[in-house]
Amino acid sequence: MRFNATLNNIKTYEAGKPIELVVREFGIDPSDIVKLASNENPKGCSPKVQEAVVNMVSKMALYPDDSMFALKKALASRFDVKESELIIGAGSDQIIEFLVHAKANENATVLMSAVTFAMYEIYARHVGAKIVRTPSYEHCFDEFYAAYKAHAPDIIFICTPNNPTGDAVDTEALYRFLEKIDSNTLVVVDGAYMEYAAFKDTKKAIAPKELIERFHNVIYLGTFSKAYGLGGMRVGYGIASEPIIEALYKLRPPFNITTLSLEAATVALADEAFVHESVQECFEQMKHFETFAAKQGLRVIPSYTNFVTLQLHNEQKSSDLAFALLKKGIIVRDLSSYGLNAIRVTVGTPEQNRRFFEQFTTVL
Amino acid sequence: MRFNATLNNIKTYEAGKPIELVVREFGIDPSDIVKLASNENPKGCSPKVQEAVVNMVSKMALYPDDSMFALKKALASRFDVKESELIIGAGSDQIIEFLVHAKANENATVLMSAVTFAMYEIYARHVGAKIVRTPSYEHCFDEFYAAYKAHAPDIIFICTPNNPTGDAVDTEALYRFLEKIDSNTLVVVDGAYMEYAAFKDTKKAIAPKELIERFHNVIYLGTFSKAYGLGGMRVGYGIASEPIIEALYKLRPPFNITTLSLEAATVALADEAFVHESVQECFEQMKHFETFAAKQGLRVIPSYTNFVTLQLHNEQKSSDLAFALLKKGIIVRDLSSYGLNAIRVTVGTPEQNRRFFEQFTTVL
Repeated sequence: MRFNATLNNIKTYEAGKPIELVVREFGIDPSDIVKLASNENPKGCSPKVQEAVVNMVSKMALYPDDSMFALKKALASRFDVKESELIIGAGSDQIIEFLVHAKANENATVLMSAVTFAMYEIYARHVGAKIVRTPSYEHCFDEFYAAYKAHAPDIIFICTPNNPTGDAVDTEALYRFLEKIDSNTLVVVDGAYMEYAAFKDTKKAIAPKELIERFHNVIYLGTFSKAYGLGGMRVGYGIASEPIIEALYKLRPPFNITTLSLEAATVALADEAFVHESVQECFEQMKHFETFAAKQGLRVIPSYTNFVTLQLHNEQKSSDLAFALLKKGIIVRDLSSYGLNAIRVTVGTPEQNRRFFEQFTTVL
Repeated sequence: MRFNATLNNIKTYEAGKPIELVVREFGIDPSDIVKLASNENPKGCSPKVQEAVVNMVSKMALYPDDSMFALKKALASRFDVKESELIIGAGSDQIIEFLVHAKANENATVLMSAVTFAMYEIYARHVGAKIVRTPSYEHCFDEFYAAYKAHAPDIIFICTPNNPTGDAVDTEALYRFLEKIDSNTLVVVDGAYMEYAAFKDTKKAIAPKELIERFHNVIYLGTFSKAYGLGGMRVGYGIASEPIIEALYKLRPPFNITTLSLEAATVALADEAFVHESVQECFEQMKHFETFAAKQGLRVIPSYTNFVTLQLHNEQKSSDLAFALLKKGIIVRDLSSYGLNAIRVTVGTPEQNRRFFEQFTTVL
């Protein structure tokens, strides 16, 4: 069977056995496993969300409301935008998929940072687009602009705060950059961790309404997977001017959000106190990581997210360190595949973090 | 902003307000609304599934197991196939999306019945493929073969039982057709309603293992949305030889099934008694539709599914009838957009069906 040639350039995402199973193979009790690899909210999700979902389990046979009436209304009200300026995806991932398929093809070029969210490249490969990266792992707008002039990309991805490094751009610097970009270049501002950045430093906060009113070629992405504690429910959203949303809607499959996920996200959005507490507790705990790293003589990239990226000394390979931690039941993300000798560690509960510090010193 | 030219041929799927809201605008009490439009299981889903999901609500913050370890193991065991011959999608819809993107493009041709599942055409339009349909609304293999010889399609969709007509092909006739198709044409056998057909008539039953062993160019699709009663949870599966599964896996986004959906589907698959009861009760109730239609002098297409398609007389327009029923709080599917003067009605609970018969006679 022959398939489209674009498939030749796509590496299959190889999901192995659940990492918990692997850890158990080392003889570790499941209750002793500390998973700090996926930037999940260590508080879980709001108890109000759990209650609402329990009340909905008798409705699992019913197709989701495909107009997403309640969730769209709530998001439009939260961000003071029109419902026609919103699209909801199965994670903000799915909106990235829509926009790459809508805007790019085999003749297109996509620009992103040297080290950034992996799905930008993966979806760009789906359509056979050319991928250009800036030299620095942190978002440097001078580099982005030079690459823009040199390559005339169709799509530019700005991930702020950036995953997996944790750094964030200043909103004013972003605006100055956007002013220089032509109106036919689609710029994606991925704010998956924005709730954390906005709390830590208002200079990093981006208001989607202002962003899309000033720049009609920009789409803002947000998610319920991080601060809202719904990583398992797959709900994200895009905010942009109507022509962009209309184009993306053409590629949206019906019923792309489950019945329970719609309910969970709608209730989660209403519980602002839970999000505020989650973010506050995260940064309180993050101080311990900074103190710990300083003691160990390691650099922590200043983080505007719910994770920290620890840069290791040259003599210590991050892949070895991550594997040594794995054998102790501590799961973190090795960043060697991103070209960094670093590990990314989710800021967990006080107890999870204590376990991480304890085990880290034994394997370093 | 310019987008890819293929988007020009895609009509946006316009999801309006939830139909329940529309019905309420006619002053109908929500508890009086009878929704027989989406072929949902009127029994809901298994109580065991509901219990399992309730027990998982504290896990909504955690990303799904992307290897889908438990569900794949259960499906492989149920169908006696290898896990490497399986792919799981957000509804079988998503697998249709994968396979169209993997196999078709602007130069491709896709063949399907005159009246069949709408998503085949929608996804084909996403990639700009040419769409060819057989003349008859029922699957006629002579017509399929003639179109195959004339158009050399890249993909052929066989929907059995067919949605929205309810008819099903004989397995032996399907096999005789498949033997004449070259190995580079991808044939999709969509068995979304197969649990119903297999119960009613073993001649219509398709065993995925036998199908994919005999035909390496065929993929079988199944779903948890119908007999398993999980339409809201978006889980379907594809079974095919490894080269096909490998190609589709390249286009699968990570975490395409929610944490709760994985749990729901895994538990649902184990509760065979629930599925058996659902199917049995459906066909018991279907007799009342047949009796009713005979009394009204209307033709029911013999149905191997959980819905009946009632063909109306020429003087009665199906769109008018569906709207008249809507005003009475009875929601059915008008098939005029499929070129049929017919309505599709899900076989509901005894009480729902009684309400349908009662109101139908008042509006006819």
